[in-house]
Amino acid sequence: MIGIGPGDIEYLSLKAYKLLQQVEVVVGYTTYIELIDELLSPDQQIISTGMGGEKERAEKAIARAAGGQSVAVISSGDPGIYGMAGLILEILKRRKEKKSAADSIEVEIVPGITASTASAAALGAPLMHDHAVISLSDLLTPWDKIKKRIKAAASSDMITALYNPRSSQRTEQIKIARDIFLDHCSPETPAGIVRSARRGEDEEVVITCLKNMLDHRIDMLSTVIIGNSSTYVDEGMMLAEDGAMITPRGYEL
Amino acid sequence: MIGIGPGDIEYLSLKAYKLLQQVEVVVGYTTYIELIDELLSPDQQIISTGMGGEKERAEKAIARAAGGQSVAVISSGDPGIYGMAGLILEILKRRKEKKSAADSIEVEIVPGITASTASAAALGAPLMHDHAVISLSDLLTPWDKIKKRIKAAASSDMITALYNPRSSQRTEQIKIARDIFLDHCSPETPAGIVRSARRGEDEEVVITCLKNMLDHRIDMLSTVIIGNSSTYVDEGMMLAEDGAMITPRGYEL
Repeated sequence: MIGIGPGDIEYLSLKAYKLLQQVEVVVGYTTYIELIDELLSPDQQIISTGMGGEKERAEKAIARAAGGQSVAVISSGDPGIYGMAGLILEILKRRKEKKSAADSIEVEIVPGITASTASAAALGAPLMHDHAVISLSDLLTPWDKIKKRIKAAASSDMITALYNPRSSQRTEQIKIARDIFLDHCSPETPAGIVRSARRGEDEEVVITCLKNMLDHRIDMLSTVIIGNSSTYVDEGMMLAEDGAMITPRGYEL
Repeated sequence: MIGIGPGDIEYLSLKAYKLLQQVEVVVGYTTYIELIDELLSPDQQIISTGMGGEKERAEKAIARAAGGQSVAVISSGDPGIYGMAGLILEILKRRKEKKSAADSIEVEIVPGITASTASAAALGAPLMHDHAVISLSDLLTPWDKIKKRIKAAASSDMITALYNPRSSQRTEQIKIARDIFLDHCSPETPAGIVRSARRGEDEEVVITCLKNMLDHRIDMLSTVIIGNSSTYVDEGMMLAEDGAMITPRGYEL
Protein backbone atom coordinates (compact mmCIF):
# COMPACT_ATOMS: atom_id res chain seq x y z
CA MET A 1 0.00 0.00 0.00
CA ILE A 2 1.78 3.05 -1.29
CA GLY A 3 0.94 6.70 -0.67
CA ILE A 4 1.66 8.79 -3.75
CA GLY A 5 1.23 12.11 -1.93
CA PRO A 6 -0.69 15.05 -3.40
CA GLY A 7 -0.24 14.08 -7.05
CA ASP A 8 2.90 15.60 -8.51
CA ILE A 9 5.66 13.04 -8.98
CA GLU A 10 8.09 15.31 -7.13
CA TYR A 11 6.19 14.77 -3.86
CA LEU A 12 6.55 10.97 -4.02
CA SER A 13 8.96 9.56 -1.48
CA LEU A 14 12.12 8.02 -2.89
CA LYS A 15 10.81 4.69 -1.62
CA ALA A 16 7.46 4.99 -3.38
CA TYR A 17 9.21 6.12 -6.57
CA LYS A 18 11.46 3.08 -6.54
CA LEU A 19 8.80 0.52 -5.60
CA LEU A 20 6.30 1.74 -8.19
CA GLN A 21 8.84 0.98 -10.89
CA GLN A 22 9.75 -2.44 -9.47
CA VAL A 23 6.41 -4.10 -8.81
CA GLU A 24 4.73 -6.38 -11.32
CA VAL A 25 1.20 -5.04 -10.78
CA VAL A 26 -0.05 -1.53 -9.93
CA VAL A 27 -3.64 -1.19 -8.68
CA GLY A 28 -5.42 2.12 -8.23
CA TYR A 29 -8.26 4.51 -8.88
CA THR A 30 -8.04 5.57 -12.53
CA THR A 31 -7.30 9.23 -11.71
CA TYR A 32 -4.40 8.31 -9.42
CA ILE A 33 -2.93 5.89 -11.96
CA GLU A 34 -2.87 8.79 -14.43
CA LEU A 35 -0.97 10.93 -11.94
CA ILE A 36 1.93 8.46 -11.82
CA ASP A 37 1.60 7.23 -15.40
CA GLU A 38 5.04 8.46 -16.46
CA LEU A 39 6.70 6.08 -13.96
CA LEU A 40 5.06 2.94 -15.26
CA SER A 41 6.37 0.65 -17.99
CA PRO A 42 4.56 -1.55 -20.55
CA ASP A 43 5.88 -4.62 -18.69
CA GLN A 44 3.75 -3.80 -15.68
CA GLN A 45 0.12 -4.80 -15.34
CA ILE A 46 -2.14 -1.89 -14.42
CA ILE A 47 -5.50 -2.53 -12.78
CA SER A 48 -7.55 0.63 -12.46
CA THR A 49 -11.17 1.06 -11.46
CA GLY A 50 -13.43 4.05 -10.99
CA MET A 51 -14.54 6.01 -7.94
CA GLY A 52 -16.18 3.81 -5.34
CA GLY A 53 -14.39 0.69 -6.56
CA GLU A 54 -12.27 0.37 -3.42
CA LYS A 55 -13.41 -3.13 -2.46
CA GLU A 56 -13.01 -4.39 -6.02
CA ARG A 57 -9.49 -2.96 -6.20
CA ALA A 58 -8.56 -4.44 -2.83
CA GLU A 59 -9.85 -7.90 -3.79
CA LYS A 60 -8.04 -7.83 -7.12
CA ALA A 61 -4.79 -6.72 -5.50
CA ILE A 62 -5.00 -9.44 -2.87
CA ALA A 63 -5.76 -12.09 -5.50
CA ARG A 64 -2.67 -11.07 -7.47
CA ALA A 65 -0.47 -11.05 -4.38
CA ALA A 66 -1.83 -14.41 -3.27
CA GLY A 67 -0.86 -15.70 -6.71
CA GLY A 68 2.73 -14.68 -6.05
CA GLN A 69 2.99 -11.35 -7.85
CA SER A 70 4.42 -8.19 -6.32
CA VAL A 71 1.60 -5.65 -6.16
CA ALA A 72 1.44 -1.94 -5.35
CA VAL A 73 -1.93 -0.55 -4.34
CA ILE A 74 -1.77 3.21 -4.59
CA SER A 75 -3.66 5.83 -2.60
CA SER A 76 -3.41 9.57 -3.05
CA GLY A 77 -1.89 11.27 -0.03
CA ASP A 78 -1.23 8.70 2.68
CA PRO A 79 -2.68 5.17 2.36
CA GLY A 80 -3.49 5.11 6.09
CA ILE A 81 -5.63 8.29 6.12
CA TYR A 82 -9.00 7.47 4.51
CA GLY A 83 -6.95 5.39 2.05
CA MET A 84 -6.61 1.75 1.01
CA ALA A 85 -4.41 0.45 3.87
CA GLY A 86 -7.20 -0.21 6.35
CA LEU A 87 -9.51 -1.88 3.85
CA ILE A 88 -6.79 -4.24 2.67
CA LEU A 89 -5.80 -5.23 6.21
CA GLU A 90 -9.47 -5.80 7.04
CA ILE A 91 -10.00 -8.05 4.01
CA LEU A 92 -6.79 -9.95 4.72
CA LYS A 93 -8.01 -10.65 8.24
CA ARG A 94 -11.30 -12.06 6.88
CA ARG A 95 -9.47 -14.23 4.40
CA LYS A 96 -7.08 -15.54 7.02
CA GLU A 97 -10.04 -16.54 9.18
CA LYS A 98 -11.20 -18.61 6.22
CA LYS A 99 -7.69 -20.04 5.90
CA SER A 100 -7.25 -18.83 2.35
CA ALA A 101 -3.98 -18.38 0.52
CA ALA A 102 -3.84 -14.74 1.57
CA ASP A 103 -2.30 -16.04 4.78
CA SER A 104 1.12 -15.85 3.27
CA ILE A 105 0.95 -12.36 1.79
CA GLU A 106 3.55 -9.99 3.16
CA VAL A 107 2.34 -6.41 3.37
CA GLU A 108 4.04 -3.07 3.82
CA ILE A 109 2.54 0.37 4.14
CA VAL A 110 4.55 3.18 2.59
CA PRO A 111 3.35 6.47 4.08
CA GLY A 112 2.86 9.54 1.91
CA ILE A 113 2.29 13.27 2.22
CA THR A 114 -1.36 13.65 3.21
CA ALA A 115 -3.70 16.35 1.88
CA SER A 116 -3.80 18.35 5.14
CA THR A 117 -0.04 19.00 5.08
CA ALA A 118 0.08 19.54 1.31
CA SER A 119 -2.75 22.08 1.62
CA ALA A 120 -1.13 23.71 4.64
CA ALA A 121 2.10 24.17 2.66
CA ALA A 122 0.13 25.99 -0.04
CA LEU A 123 -1.59 28.24 2.51
CA GLY A 124 1.40 29.12 4.72
CA ALA A 125 1.54 27.48 8.14
CA PRO A 126 -2.02 27.05 9.39
CA LEU A 127 -1.54 23.58 10.98
CA MET A 128 1.24 24.54 13.40
CA HIS A 129 -0.74 23.52 16.44
CA ASP A 130 -3.16 20.87 17.71
CA HIS A 131 -5.68 19.98 15.04
CA ALA A 132 -8.42 17.64 13.93
CA VAL A 133 -8.75 15.87 10.59
CA ILE A 134 -12.41 15.18 9.76
CA SER A 135 -14.01 13.83 6.59
CA LEU A 136 -17.43 15.29 5.77
CA SER A 137 -18.39 12.24 3.73
CA ASP A 138 -21.24 10.44 5.46
CA LEU A 139 -21.28 7.53 3.01
CA LEU A 140 -19.58 5.24 5.55
CA THR A 141 -20.05 7.20 8.80
CA PRO A 142 -23.25 8.39 10.50
CA TRP A 143 -23.61 12.15 10.04
CA ASP A 144 -24.43 12.67 13.74
CA LYS A 145 -21.03 11.23 14.64
CA ILE A 146 -19.29 13.57 12.21
CA LYS A 147 -21.20 16.57 13.60
CA LYS A 148 -20.18 15.64 17.13
CA ARG A 149 -16.53 15.60 16.08
CA ILE A 150 -16.80 18.96 14.34
CA LYS A 151 -18.32 20.41 17.49
CA ALA A 152 -15.57 18.87 19.62
CA ALA A 153 -12.86 20.38 17.42
CA ALA A 154 -14.52 23.80 17.21
CA SER A 155 -15.27 24.04 20.93
CA SER A 156 -11.74 23.07 21.99
CA ASP A 157 -10.08 25.61 19.68
CA MET A 158 -8.37 23.01 17.50
CA ILE A 159 -7.47 23.87 13.93
CA THR A 160 -9.54 21.62 11.65
CA ALA A 161 -8.77 20.13 8.26
CA LEU A 162 -11.93 19.02 6.45
CA TYR A 163 -11.46 16.24 3.88
CA ASN A 164 -14.12 15.44 1.23
CA PRO A 165 -15.91 18.69 2.07
CA ARG A 166 -18.50 18.63 -0.74
CA SER A 167 -19.47 16.45 -3.69
CA SER A 168 -22.04 17.03 -6.41
CA GLN A 169 -24.54 14.91 -4.43
CA ARG A 170 -23.50 15.95 -0.95
CA THR A 171 -23.81 19.72 -0.66
CA GLU A 172 -25.33 20.47 2.75
CA GLN A 173 -22.63 19.06 5.05
CA ILE A 174 -20.17 21.89 4.51
CA LYS A 175 -22.86 24.45 5.36
CA ILE A 176 -23.80 22.65 8.56
CA ALA A 177 -20.12 22.27 9.47
CA ARG A 178 -19.56 25.99 8.89
CA ASP A 179 -22.52 26.80 11.14
CA ILE A 180 -21.17 24.59 13.93
CA PHE A 181 -17.87 26.46 13.74
CA LEU A 182 -19.73 29.79 13.87
CA ASP A 183 -21.36 28.69 17.13
CA HIS A 184 -17.92 28.50 18.74
CA CYS A 185 -15.53 30.69 16.74
CA SER A 186 -15.37 34.24 15.45
CA PRO A 187 -16.83 34.73 11.94
CA GLU A 188 -13.46 36.31 11.07
CA THR A 189 -11.58 33.06 11.81
CA PRO A 190 -9.31 32.46 8.80
CA ALA A 191 -10.30 29.59 6.52
CA GLY A 192 -8.21 28.24 3.68
CA ILE A 193 -9.56 26.32 0.70
CA VAL A 194 -7.03 24.45 -1.40
CA ARG A 195 -8.09 22.63 -4.54
CA SER A 196 -5.70 20.02 -6.01
CA ALA A 197 -3.06 20.96 -3.42
CA ARG A 198 0.48 20.57 -4.79
CA ARG A 199 -0.88 19.01 -7.97
CA GLY A 200 1.05 21.24 -10.35
CA GLU A 201 -0.82 23.96 -12.21
CA ASP A 202 -4.19 22.60 -11.11
CA GLU A 203 -3.65 23.98 -7.60
CA GLU A 204 -6.05 26.73 -6.51
CA VAL A 205 -5.60 28.48 -3.17
CA VAL A 206 -8.12 30.75 -1.46
CA ILE A 207 -7.68 32.35 1.94
CA THR A 208 -10.96 33.59 3.35
CA CYS A 209 -12.79 33.43 6.69
CA LEU A 210 -15.60 31.39 8.23
CA LYS A 211 -18.15 34.07 7.37
CA ASN A 212 -17.30 34.09 3.66
CA MET A 213 -15.99 30.61 2.97
CA LEU A 214 -19.16 29.34 1.30
CA ASP A 215 -18.83 32.00 -1.42
CA HIS A 216 -15.91 30.06 -2.91
CA ARG A 217 -15.74 26.86 -4.91
CA ILE A 218 -15.44 23.80 -2.66
CA ASP A 219 -15.62 20.29 -4.12
CA MET A 220 -14.18 16.78 -3.83
CA LEU A 221 -10.76 18.03 -4.90
CA SER A 222 -10.71 20.59 -2.07
CA THR A 223 -9.35 20.48 1.45
CA VAL A 224 -10.64 23.16 3.82
CA ILE A 225 -8.53 24.29 6.78
CA ILE A 226 -10.19 26.35 9.50
CA GLY A 227 -7.88 28.14 11.89
CA ASN A 228 -7.92 28.33 15.67
CA SER A 229 -8.46 31.52 17.68
CA SER A 230 -4.81 32.59 17.13
CA THR A 231 -4.65 32.00 13.38
CA TYR A 232 -4.14 35.15 11.31
CA VAL A 233 -3.59 36.14 7.71
CA ASP A 234 -0.42 37.95 6.68
CA GLU A 235 -1.62 39.73 3.56
CA GLY A 236 1.85 40.95 2.74
CA MET A 237 3.38 37.48 2.49
CA MET A 238 3.00 36.54 -1.15
CA LEU A 239 2.94 32.79 -0.69
CA ALA A 240 -0.59 32.41 -2.00
CA GLU A 241 -2.45 35.13 -3.89
CA ASP A 242 -4.24 36.21 -0.71
CA GLY A 243 -1.16 36.20 1.52
CA ALA A 244 -0.35 33.49 4.04
CA MET A 245 -2.41 31.83 6.76
CA ILE A 246 -0.37 31.42 9.94
CA THR A 247 -1.12 29.78 13.27
CA PRO A 248 1.46 30.83 15.88
CA ARG A 249 3.09 27.99 17.76
CA GLY A 250 3.44 30.20 20.83
CA TYR A 251 7.04 31.43 20.69
CA GLU A 252 7.77 34.84 22.25
CA LEU A 253 9.15 36.91 19.40
CA MET B 1 11.31 25.13 4.79
CA ILE B 2 11.73 21.49 3.96
CA GLY B 3 10.16 18.49 5.66
CA ILE B 4 12.56 15.56 5.74
CA GLY B 5 9.90 13.06 6.87
CA PRO B 6 10.53 10.48 9.59
CA GLY B 7 14.30 10.30 9.20
CA ASP B 8 15.33 7.68 6.67
CA ILE B 9 16.48 9.19 3.39
CA GLU B 10 14.09 6.90 1.49
CA TYR B 11 11.08 8.75 2.92
CA LEU B 12 12.26 12.15 1.61
CA SER B 13 10.21 13.47 -1.27
CA LEU B 14 12.00 13.69 -4.61
CA LYS B 15 11.67 17.46 -4.30
CA ALA B 16 13.25 17.63 -0.84
CA TYR B 17 16.03 15.29 -1.99
CA LYS B 18 16.84 17.53 -4.96
CA LEU B 19 16.59 20.85 -3.11
CA LEU B 20 18.75 19.72 -0.19
CA GLN B 21 21.57 19.05 -2.63
CA GLN B 22 21.12 22.34 -4.49
CA VAL B 23 20.93 24.97 -1.75
CA GLU B 24 23.95 26.88 -0.50
CA VAL B 25 23.03 26.73 3.19
CA VAL B 26 21.28 24.02 5.23
CA VAL B 27 19.96 24.98 8.67
CA GLY B 28 18.64 22.51 11.21
CA TYR B 29 18.60 20.88 14.61
CA THR B 30 21.84 18.88 14.93
CA THR B 31 20.07 15.50 15.10
CA TYR B 32 18.12 16.18 11.90
CA ILE B 33 21.23 17.37 10.05
CA GLU B 34 22.84 14.03 10.93
CA LEU B 35 19.87 12.16 9.45
CA ILE B 36 20.44 13.72 6.01
CA ASP B 37 24.20 14.03 6.30
CA GLU B 38 24.91 11.70 3.39
CA LEU B 39 23.15 14.08 0.98
CA LEU B 40 25.23 17.12 1.86
CA SER B 41 28.49 18.19 0.22
CA PRO B 42 31.54 20.04 1.60
CA ASP B 43 30.58 23.02 -0.60
CA GLN B 44 27.45 23.62 1.41
CA GLN B 45 27.36 25.60 4.64
CA ILE B 46 25.70 23.75 7.50
CA ILE B 47 24.25 25.66 10.43
CA SER B 48 23.08 23.36 13.20
CA THR B 49 22.00 24.19 16.72
CA GLY B 50 20.75 22.14 19.64
CA MET B 51 17.28 21.42 20.98
CA GLY B 52 15.35 24.57 21.79
CA GLY B 53 17.37 26.68 19.37
CA GLU B 54 14.44 27.21 16.99
CA LYS B 55 14.44 31.01 17.13
CA GLU B 56 18.20 31.15 16.69
CA ARG B 57 18.01 28.83 13.67
CA ALA B 58 15.17 30.83 12.14
CA GLU B 59 17.03 34.13 12.57
CA LYS B 60 20.22 32.73 11.10
CA ALA B 61 18.38 31.24 8.13
CA ILE B 62 16.57 34.51 7.43
CA ALA B 63 19.82 36.49 7.69
CA ARG B 64 21.47 34.20 5.12
CA ALA B 65 18.49 34.39 2.78
CA ALA B 66 18.31 38.17 3.14
CA GLY B 67 21.99 38.21 2.14
CA GLY B 68 21.10 36.49 -1.11
CA GLN B 69 21.93 32.85 -0.37
CA SER B 70 19.61 29.93 -1.05
CA VAL B 71 18.76 28.38 2.29
CA ALA B 72 16.98 25.17 3.32
CA VAL B 73 15.62 25.05 6.86
CA ILE B 74 14.84 21.44 7.70
CA SER B 75 12.22 20.03 10.03
CA SER B 76 11.66 16.38 10.76
CA GLY B 77 8.30 15.17 9.50
CA ASP B 78 6.37 18.07 8.00
CA PRO B 79 7.61 21.65 8.53
CA GLY B 80 4.03 22.89 9.01
CA ILE B 81 3.15 20.52 11.89
CA TYR B 82 4.87 21.76 15.05
CA GLY B 83 7.83 22.52 12.73
CA MET B 84 9.81 25.53 11.55
CA ALA B 85 7.42 26.89 8.88
CA GLY B 86 5.19 28.89 11.21
CA LEU B 87 8.05 30.41 13.20
CA ILE B 88 9.82 31.58 10.06
CA LEU B 89 6.68 33.14 8.57
CA GLU B 90 6.03 34.86 11.91
CA ILE B 91 9.53 36.31 12.08
CA LEU B 92 9.39 37.42 8.44
CA LYS B 93 6.18 39.30 9.17
CA ARG B 94 7.85 41.13 12.09
CA ARG B 95 10.83 42.02 9.96
CA LYS B 96 8.67 43.28 7.12
CA GLU B 97 6.84 45.55 9.54
CA LYS B 98 10.25 47.04 10.36
CA LYS B 99 10.95 47.31 6.62
CA SER B 100 14.08 45.19 6.75
CA ALA B 101 15.72 43.41 3.85
CA ALA B 102 13.75 40.26 4.60
CA ASP B 103 11.02 41.91 2.55
CA SER B 104 12.43 40.40 -0.58
CA ILE B 105 12.92 36.82 0.59
CA GLU B 106 10.96 34.27 -1.41
CA VAL B 107 9.79 31.33 0.64
CA GLU B 108 8.46 27.89 -0.17
CA ILE B 109 7.22 25.18 2.13
CA VAL B 110 7.97 21.62 1.02
CA PRO B 111 5.66 19.28 2.92
CA GLY B 112 6.92 16.00 4.34
CA ILE B 113 5.60 12.76 5.82
CA THR B 114 4.53 13.64 9.35
CA ALA B 115 5.06 11.42 12.42
CA SER B 116 1.41 10.44 12.77
CA THR B 117 1.31 8.82 9.32
CA ALA B 118 4.79 7.29 9.63
CA SER B 119 3.79 5.78 12.99
CA ALA B 120 0.46 4.60 11.61
CA ALA B 121 2.27 2.81 8.76
CA ALA B 122 4.37 0.94 11.33
CA LEU B 123 1.30 -0.03 13.37
CA GLY B 124 -1.05 -1.06 10.56
CA ALA B 125 -3.89 1.30 9.73
CA PRO B 126 -5.01 2.97 12.96
CA LEU B 127 -5.61 6.46 11.48
CA MET B 128 -8.18 5.46 8.86
CA HIS B 129 -10.85 7.71 10.28
CA ASP B 130 -11.38 11.15 11.83
CA HIS B 131 -8.58 11.97 14.23
CA ALA B 132 -6.91 14.59 16.36
CA VAL B 133 -3.22 15.45 16.48
CA ILE B 134 -2.26 16.86 19.88
CA SER B 135 1.14 17.74 21.34
CA LEU B 136 1.52 17.10 25.07
CA SER B 137 4.31 19.65 25.37
CA ASP B 138 3.13 22.54 27.52
CA LEU B 139 6.26 24.61 27.00
CA LEU B 140 4.44 26.94 24.58
CA THR B 141 0.78 26.08 25.28
CA PRO B 142 -1.20 26.27 28.55
CA TRP B 143 -1.77 22.77 29.90
CA ASP B 144 -5.46 23.46 30.53
CA LYS B 145 -5.93 24.10 26.81
CA ILE B 146 -4.22 20.84 25.93
CA LYS B 147 -6.37 18.92 28.43
CA LYS B 148 -9.51 20.43 26.94
CA ARG B 149 -8.47 19.22 23.48
CA ILE B 150 -7.70 15.71 24.74
CA LYS B 151 -11.13 15.60 26.34
CA ALA B 152 -12.76 16.83 23.11
CA ALA B 153 -11.03 14.13 21.07
CA ALA B 154 -11.75 11.34 23.57
CA SER B 155 -15.40 12.29 24.07
CA SER B 156 -16.14 12.52 20.34
CA ASP B 157 -14.58 9.11 19.56
CA MET B 158 -11.79 10.50 17.41
CA ILE B 159 -8.58 8.54 17.04
CA THR B 160 -5.78 10.60 18.63
CA ALA B 161 -2.11 10.92 17.77
CA LEU B 162 -0.09 12.32 20.67
CA TYR B 163 3.13 14.12 19.70
CA ASN B 164 5.88 14.89 22.27
CA PRO B 165 4.19 12.58 24.78
CA ARG B 166 6.89 12.60 27.46
CA SER B 167 10.34 14.13 28.07
CA SER B 168 12.78 13.58 30.90
CA GLN B 169 11.43 16.72 32.60
CA ARG B 170 7.80 16.37 31.62
CA THR B 171 6.52 13.03 32.85
CA GLU B 172 3.02 13.63 34.24
CA GLN B 173 1.20 14.80 31.11
CA ILE B 174 0.96 11.38 29.49
CA LYS B 175 -0.54 9.95 32.69
CA ILE B 176 -3.15 12.69 32.87
CA ALA B 177 -3.91 12.29 29.16
CA ARG B 178 -4.34 8.54 29.61
CA ASP B 179 -6.74 9.15 32.52
CA ILE B 180 -8.84 11.56 30.42
CA PHE B 181 -9.14 8.87 27.74
CA LEU B 182 -10.15 6.32 30.37
CA ASP B 183 -13.00 8.65 31.42
CA HIS B 184 -14.49 8.29 27.92
CA CYS B 185 -13.14 5.10 26.34
CA SER B 186 -12.86 1.42 27.20
CA PRO B 187 -9.61 0.47 29.01
CA GLU B 188 -9.17 -2.12 26.24
CA THR B 189 -9.01 0.57 23.52
CA PRO B 190 -5.95 -0.25 21.41
CA ALA B 191 -2.98 2.09 21.81
CA GLY B 192 0.13 2.05 19.67
CA ILE B 193 3.52 3.43 20.71
CA VAL B 194 6.05 3.95 17.96
CA ARG B 195 9.56 5.11 18.75
CA SER B 196 11.68 6.51 15.90
CA ALA B 197 8.96 5.61 13.39
CA ARG B 198 10.39 4.66 9.97
CA ARG B 199 13.88 5.65 11.12
CA GLY B 200 15.59 2.46 10.03
CA GLU B 201 16.64 -0.03 12.68
CA ASP B 202 15.91 2.41 15.49
CA GLU B 203 12.18 1.87 15.05
CA GLU B 204 10.37 0.25 17.99
CA VAL B 205 6.69 -0.64 17.74
CA VAL B 206 4.42 -1.62 20.63
CA ILE B 207 0.71 -2.36 20.35
CA THR B 208 -0.99 -2.27 23.73
CA CYS B 209 -4.17 -0.76 25.18
CA LEU B 210 -5.15 2.29 27.25
CA LYS B 211 -5.03 0.27 30.47
CA ASN B 212 -1.46 -0.94 29.93
CA MET B 213 0.14 1.76 27.82
CA LEU B 214 2.08 3.37 30.69
CA ASP B 215 3.98 0.11 31.26
CA HIS B 216 5.95 0.74 28.06
CA ARG B 217 8.74 3.14 27.23
CA ILE B 218 7.38 6.49 25.99
CA ASP B 219 9.74 9.42 25.37
CA MET B 220 10.41 12.37 23.06
CA LEU B 221 11.12 10.01 20.16
CA SER B 222 7.71 8.35 20.56
CA THR B 223 4.36 8.98 18.95
CA VAL B 224 1.34 7.47 20.69
CA ILE B 225 -1.80 6.61 18.73
CA ILE B 226 -4.98 5.84 20.65
CA GLY B 227 -7.75 4.16 18.68
CA ASN B 228 -11.45 4.97 18.49
CA SER B 229 -14.24 2.68 19.68
CA SER B 230 -13.99 0.55 16.48
CA THR B 231 -10.21 0.09 16.46
CA TYR B 232 -9.05 -3.49 16.94
CA VAL B 233 -5.83 -5.48 16.94
CA ASP B 234 -5.30 -8.28 14.44
CA GLU B 235 -2.79 -10.42 16.30
CA GLY B 236 -2.28 -12.70 13.33
CA MET B 237 -1.12 -9.95 10.96
CA MET B 238 2.63 -9.89 11.41
CA LEU B 239 3.18 -6.29 10.45
CA ALA B 240 4.54 -5.32 13.86
CA GLU B 241 5.62 -7.82 16.48
CA ASP B 242 2.26 -7.53 18.24
CA GLY B 243 0.13 -7.78 15.11
CA ALA B 244 -1.57 -4.84 13.43
CA MET B 245 -3.76 -2.04 14.77
CA ILE B 246 -6.70 -1.39 12.44
CA THR B 247 -9.48 1.19 12.49
CA PRO B 248 -12.26 0.18 10.07
CA ARG B 249 -13.30 2.88 7.63
CA GLY B 250 -16.84 1.53 7.62
CA TYR B 251 -17.01 -0.63 4.50
CA GLU B 252 -19.42 -3.59 4.55
CA LEU B 253 -17.19 -6.61 3.99
